[in-house]
Amino acid sequence: MSAKPVKPKAAPRRPAPPSAGTATSASPAATKAASLKAAIARGDLFAAACPSREVLKHVTSRWGVLVLVALLDGTLRFSDLRRRIGGVSEKMLAQTLQWLEGDGFVLRVSYPVVPPHVEYSLTPLGREVGTRVEGLADWIENNLGAILEQRAQPPGDIRAASDARAARR
Amino acid sequence: MSAKPVKPKAAPRRPAPPSAGTATSASPAATKAASLKAAIARGDLFAAACPSREVLKHVTSRWGVLVLVALLDGTLRFSDLRRRIGGVSEKMLAQTLQWLEGDGFVLRVSYPVVPPHVEYSLTPLGREVGTRVEGLADWIENNLGAILEQRAQPPGDIRAASDARAARR
Repeated sequence: MSAKPVKPKAAPRRPAPPSAGTATSASPAATKAASLKAAIARGDLFAAACPSREVLKHVTSRWGVLVLVALLDGTLRFSDLRRRIGGVSEKMLAQTLQWLEGDGFVLRVSYPVVPPHVEYSLTPLGREVGTRVEGLADWIENNLGAILEQRAQPPGDIRAASDARAARR
Repeated sequence: MSAKPVKPKAAPRRPAPPSAGTATSASPAATKAASLKAAIARGDLFAAACPSREVLKHVTSRWGVLVLVALLDGTLRFSDLRRRIGGVSEKMLAQTLQWLEGDGFVLRVSYPVVPPHVEYSLTPLGREVGTRVEGLADWIENNLGAILEQRAQPPGDIRAASDARAARR
């Protein structure tokens, strides 16, 4: 993590009109993206204004973590995802998928059939971030016993005694 | 991530009286913790009732991520942390530190001096989870350019054409 403060421009959230799938490398949107990319060589999560904060929020949101981990196993339909992730509401799952789609982590493909058939999968970028999120999720699952043991302890406010003060010097 | 549903008991949040620092391995609290640990061999984040969800919330909270990453560099005072983490309020930083302390990730040591001197550091458990969180944070910072480029694209709602449908079969 770089301690160097950056002053990134705020990222435009979906500035393009909804004429989907027509952007080429010569389009104004792509040109704008390229200059943005140059402007923000590296994010800095410690800087309040850095757009990386928003990405972090999406990826580490309560449901974002679980969507990413679930999709690491493969393509899923909305209803599959909802069944897999205990307790998520339809609204929150849809919101989370929109966030992750907006960041380029999730690909949404709708098939023109009746009834509607929509599939979600990870993009290569989504697979990369998903692997890191899964590493964290796995660690928490594997260490839950030790964590709950800590919770059962009295509060850890250690008042350093005079000998501890001496040790500090 | 195990798909096997678990039915963990809810973890008591700080059940012990505030007589800090007296728990030994033979204390009732430790015995209770040991049985809890046995009951929850492994967490399951996909299960709505699993206490791992709360740990995930603390660790991936907006400020939790940054506190863990900041403390990976070493012991810090409250004011140091607040200066390091852009935009955090005193209240939210205190709340986040309490969460992480409760989960056994952060150690709080107060020195009996005037003015009060309180130091925060990571426990071995906190260092482990912090390393995973840092991996995710670093990835986001390093890939921010690519992510913002995705955001500048039109929405990725791909309506599969008939040839795509054929390919699916």
